[in-house]
Amino acid sequence: MEIVVQKYGGSSVATIEKMNKVADKIIKKYKENKKLVIVLSAMGDSTNRLIDLANQVSKKPDSRELDALLTTGEQISISLLAMALIEKGYQAVSFNGSQLDIRASGFHQSAKISDIDTSKITENLDQGKIVIVAGFQGIFENGELTTLGRGGSDTSAVALAVKLNAKCEIYTDVDGIYTMDPRKLEGAKKLDYISYEEMIELADLGAKVMNFRSVILASKYKVPIYVGATFSDKRGTLITNRELVEMEETAIVGMTVNLDDIQITVFNLPSSSQSLSNLFMKIGRENVNVDMISQMLTRDNNMDVSFSIDKDNKEKVLLILQKLKEEDKSIDWEINENIAKVSVVGFGMKTNSGVAGKVFELMADNDIEIKMITTSETRITWMINSDREQEVINLIGEEFELKSEKVG
Amino acid sequence: MEIVVQKYGGSSVATIEKMNKVADKIIKKYKENKKLVIVLSAMGDSTNRLIDLANQVSKKPDSRELDALLTTGEQISISLLAMALIEKGYQAVSFNGSQLDIRASGFHQSAKISDIDTSKITENLDQGKIVIVAGFQGIFENGELTTLGRGGSDTSAVALAVKLNAKCEIYTDVDGIYTMDPRKLEGAKKLDYISYEEMIELADLGAKVMNFRSVILASKYKVPIYVGATFSDKRGTLITNRELVEMEETAIVGMTVNLDDIQITVFNLPSSSQSLSNLFMKIGRENVNVDMISQMLTRDNNMDVSFSIDKDNKEKVLLILQKLKEEDKSIDWEINENIAKVSVVGFGMKTNSGVAGKVFELMADNDIEIKMITTSETRITWMINSDREQEVINLIGEEFELKSEKVG
Repeated sequence: MEIVVQKYGGSSVATIEKMNKVADKIIKKYKENKKLVIVLSAMGDSTNRLIDLANQVSKKPDSRELDALLTTGEQISISLLAMALIEKGYQAVSFNGSQLDIRASGFHQSAKISDIDTSKITENLDQGKIVIVAGFQGIFENGELTTLGRGGSDTSAVALAVKLNAKCEIYTDVDGIYTMDPRKLEGAKKLDYISYEEMIELADLGAKVMNFRSVILASKYKVPIYVGATFSDKRGTLITNRELVEMEETAIVGMTVNLDDIQITVFNLPSSSQSLSNLFMKIGRENVNVDMISQMLTRDNNMDVSFSIDKDNKEKVLLILQKLKEEDKSIDWEINENIAKVSVVGFGMKTNSGVAGKVFELMADNDIEIKMITTSETRITWMINSDREQEVINLIGEEFELKSEKVG
Repeated sequence: MEIVVQKYGGSSVATIEKMNKVADKIIKKYKENKKLVIVLSAMGDSTNRLIDLANQVSKKPDSRELDALLTTGEQISISLLAMALIEKGYQAVSFNGSQLDIRASGFHQSAKISDIDTSKITENLDQGKIVIVAGFQGIFENGELTTLGRGGSDTSAVALAVKLNAKCEIYTDVDGIYTMDPRKLEGAKKLDYISYEEMIELADLGAKVMNFRSVILASKYKVPIYVGATFSDKRGTLITNRELVEMEETAIVGMTVNLDDIQITVFNLPSSSQSLSNLFMKIGRENVNVDMISQMLTRDNNMDVSFSIDKDNKEKVLLILQKLKEEDKSIDWEINENIAKVSVVGFGMKTNSGVAGKVFELMADNDIEIKMITTSETRITWMINSDREQEVINLIGEEFELKSEKVG
């Protein structure tokens, strides 16, 4: 009998009413003669509420204790779902990370699953029970409770599917993977298939549907992931091998826009590779991630360098720059907070080398300044003024057929 | 270095503000050079809120899953307290029932602690850490999470004190054991000492301060329990061996009044022991506890029997009586819902045989009808009309010196 791992996100079980609807959906699948393993997140925003509680007690909550606190969110949702299924007349049993010995390694709040003992799961599945597993959590070798970091429940589900040689279905509040956030691109097209690699790029760039670590894991073990809406029967998206997707491949499968960054341009750095490494080492030591970088020599043989960082890190970087200026008064800088980082992703770019050229042309034709640009084999990312965000989304959406024909 | 087990009830940690005050109280004790093990209940009414959630999902929540749900209450409070202590600059570490292998036996929701592996606790105490333990929970031999029943955190604390050969302090929202609920008897006296046996009787009769199973456990292992108020430095009550209490012994140490019962009188039962056993067997089979029973023969050689049951069981007993009447039309009954069960407890009664006589006299002098009465070596319980409750409390309070001299 086929085993199916289904994961339901927090918004799918935010209320008792929704929890009951999820139970009904599970029962429907169970009646199709499947062995079911259900992975749950914490109800609604309860993880955030637990973090709020912790922050009321401590400015920097102890990480071991924070994990012990956070694991309660999933413990509550799994036991309630088990009760709901039992109430409806089905056998169900819940397990938390420590009961299943979901072994993790690494650090609190960002642990990685290293192994799962599935014997309890298969034993209960063989007894005809629906098995419910707490997502997002595991235990370290020393028995300490830990969590896998945001989006960790996706990883729990994929890891279970790998170990159980099962299908993996992720249910959430959107009905699949879109070429672009439909709230930003009217008529954005839903993809029937997407390759692991493209999904990883999109997720890494900020597409919210799937946690990218879970896609990397699925890709490693070639476990297809079906992503669909919890409360709808509309067809979702299958994330799978590139070969299976290729037949319908287009140049670009998706687009993301990130508004969380700012651009900093530093003027008059001494023109040596040392001054650059000096700057970025200092930034790195503050745990600030620098995304795009571009540099140019000035006429007086100094160097200007422009880079983007997350808005939240602005103060840290300013402190570094102020110290640099104390050593070298000629250094100066400019901050641009109104930027949007646009990315397009697709394996088709490899064989269709015109994509970058087309992007440049579209921007030029419409007088949109490209402030920085980086490219890789499968993606192009460029920075524009955020005022032009919507215009660029529409231009790219039209040009690269990101809209479904019905609406577009 | 002396080990002290302190237990704080749910109302003592109901808010983050109170949690911080509890942390300060713990730190003060820690600075007195004590090794501290802190047992916590769930914050405020969170256990009730979890039960409400469960009842929204299921009319009769699965008991295994209900326990899995309920354990989250203490997991939240212990991790937050650990964070609070760490924030204040002290080393602290929290453990739940399964991390400590608090082994329990029996049934879900009413398990009994059978053993605790204290090696992790002593190891952490030796490192100078304050150890925080989830009360109310344990695990069965098969690893299933379980809870100890209401008031179970008291039992957790006493069991830990037994295993660690430690002092046991129970902190709550009242500042000790009183001769009578001070809301009912103005000027009720706080006891400096009470014997285990008297405390067990009082707790069993409904005095709310201590869970009676935990007192039985303490009595078995001769662990003294100090009961005091969390947010006050007033002297509390020490529950200890009778020999240590005897010197200040009075005839009666305490009084309770129970308003949860009703009295049922059945008329015209056939006068045979069989008809009585038949009735009470049927009642027992419905899990209804019968408390007081009195019977008398009538002039026509039938039997009337009067007994008290908990209000909640009224419908069950009525059904039984209706069936009996179908077999024997002469049977009839009367229900009295306005009764109060008054008890006085004290070892002094053994040597002071006048107590029962004094009670009868007081009731007679004041025209208060005694509807039923039972006595044992150490207690007298009698039933009165609930209208007279306050009058009886005052009469007994005066007569047996239950009021402190300052106020009385």
